[in-house]
Amino acid sequence: MGARGSMDYRAAGVDLERGDRAKAGLKDLLGSTSDALTLSKFGTFGGLYAVPPDVTEPVLVSSADGVGTKLKVAFAAGEHGTVGHDLVNHCVNDILVQGAKPLFFLDYLATGVLEECVVHDVVAGVARGCKENACALLGGETAQMPGFYAAGEYDLAGFIVGIVSRARILDGSRVRPGDALVGLPSSGLHTNGYSLARQIVFEAAGLEVTDRLPGHDETVATALLRVHRSYLDVLWPELEEGTVSALSHITGGGIPGNLPRSLPEGLGAEIDRGSWQVPPLFRALQELGAVDEDEMLRVFNMGVGMVVVLTAAEAGPFVRRLGARGEAAWELGRVVERPGVRFQ
Amino acid sequence: MGARGSMDYRAAGVDLERGDRAKAGLKDLLGSTSDALTLSKFGTFGGLYAVPPDVTEPVLVSSADGVGTKLKVAFAAGEHGTVGHDLVNHCVNDILVQGAKPLFFLDYLATGVLEECVVHDVVAGVARGCKENACALLGGETAQMPGFYAAGEYDLAGFIVGIVSRARILDGSRVRPGDALVGLPSSGLHTNGYSLARQIVFEAAGLEVTDRLPGHDETVATALLRVHRSYLDVLWPELEEGTVSALSHITGGGIPGNLPRSLPEGLGAEIDRGSWQVPPLFRALQELGAVDEDEMLRVFNMGVGMVVVLTAAEAGPFVRRLGARGEAAWELGRVVERPGVRFQ
Repeated sequence: MGARGSMDYRAAGVDLERGDRAKAGLKDLLGSTSDALTLSKFGTFGGLYAVPPDVTEPVLVSSADGVGTKLKVAFAAGEHGTVGHDLVNHCVNDILVQGAKPLFFLDYLATGVLEECVVHDVVAGVARGCKENACALLGGETAQMPGFYAAGEYDLAGFIVGIVSRARILDGSRVRPGDALVGLPSSGLHTNGYSLARQIVFEAAGLEVTDRLPGHDETVATALLRVHRSYLDVLWPELEEGTVSALSHITGGGIPGNLPRSLPEGLGAEIDRGSWQVPPLFRALQELGAVDEDEMLRVFNMGVGMVVVLTAAEAGPFVRRLGARGEAAWELGRVVERPGVRFQ
Repeated sequence: MGARGSMDYRAAGVDLERGDRAKAGLKDLLGSTSDALTLSKFGTFGGLYAVPPDVTEPVLVSSADGVGTKLKVAFAAGEHGTVGHDLVNHCVNDILVQGAKPLFFLDYLATGVLEECVVHDVVAGVARGCKENACALLGGETAQMPGFYAAGEYDLAGFIVGIVSRARILDGSRVRPGDALVGLPSSGLHTNGYSLARQIVFEAAGLEVTDRLPGHDETVATALLRVHRSYLDVLWPELEEGTVSALSHITGGGIPGNLPRSLPEGLGAEIDRGSWQVPPLFRALQELGAVDEDEMLRVFNMGVGMVVVLTAAEAGPFVRRLGARGEAAWELGRVVERPGVRFQ
């Protein structure tokens, strides 16, 4: 209540000064990601970013995403510095599959009661992800929404804009039957399957975030909060060379839910189950939850975070080039003239 | 639980098929907003949009925003078709103030349990807003997040990208002391001040959404859910003519919180309190909540949704041109050589 028993915004749960202070702390974080094309300073209504002048027939590629219920693990662990990084890397991968390089990113952070240090940690993670991917953090919104989120909780979404020359768009049109499918390792669950993973770990197995995961040397929090990997650095030289026909980011829905999105209509995939080793984290979840193998494949990435489609002749050299850079890659299978994904 | 007593994703609260069905219903909504520069179809990882070839030194202008706690009024009224429209118009105004015209929009809709008809209504509102502003709805994310949102509740954020020629950017540099400030009417609260408005109307006054607002012919729901106005149509011809020096979108923080963002450092504003009539909705809220006048001005737009800065000589002709098109506009005051906003 205000000074004279009247109502005011702070009494209604919204503290404009606290919001301003939290925002002021973000100024340096955004500034640290600026580049030569960033034309706006912090605090403008919209962020300004010049279209790079050196792209022929430039096409913008944009994606929106959230972190999903991985946030609940961050809340339980009191660790707010990684989820922003997850979000940026997720979005970077989503536009990379169309051949685009990131230009800029904006975040939306919604809280019930705005806690300055939490806001700072979250946005610092976003800024770290932006720097790692050479992407400007152009702006964002920090919303105070009393009654929407429990104390200490928040939701986080992000939006990315990248650019690709029209002739370099990856849209599946270069994919042919007989092409090879090469998988790149994920770093963990990335940002998918957390509703099931949390139910298994916290409810069925009764573990806490500080407990060691059975068969693991690390805690539940460490294993479940590992940052979603960005494939920009490893794949960008290949995209510039034009060796890649298509890419599929393995997110919610797993390989069966995502690989077909990158293939032309009428084509499908055969995948050899023995072509890669499913990491112990997924096997631990499967055992603790007695989850069917099909359900595992439909919910989790199972260790494969990105699938690369190339001609059969290119696959071997591609895997060797990555190997020479210390990057693992597995020949998973092939593109076939029958829709859908079959594991064999 | 799955067929054999095992755990699965649906039991964990996430229904991938229901998600797929809800998404399928959105395909036509997105398609209805496509234009000649929209290069992607529904369902790709990232949306594709060609940079318009006819803009000299193109600069992208981008903004992220949410609807805030206006959503709680929509929940109480069971009316989900307008908040998406609010969001688009809010974002359109945020980039218009930098001189930009919208290209495309993406939404982030997060639910606890995904209700297909609610998702459809919300995205239909987004699509309506996009069509009204000649903006493509290029993509979005519909997240199922069990345990984050109460049944029937959701959060909604949006992200817009527009374009402006570098020489046409409005950045305050054209503003001079003595310039005129012209206000354009808001349609209502727009999307700000709802935490306080809800506390006044529902808690202090004990009204329901279906009750008539005191002194009004309409219900609380109708008055509080009126769609945030887009100023694109009314202002675009003026921006093309180059008559406008700066614009300020009056959002959270009211005139004192937003007008200075559009003025160069060292300059401020004097505003004549009698230059416009505060609409009855704001007076009703003030009386019901016994809210201080200063607090009202700091939280609500008070009937002025956009402030236009132009030379003193341009102000009269501008107001008359708008009048000839049936649009109200008020000369509010002037730019002065003293920082801050003073009402007199």
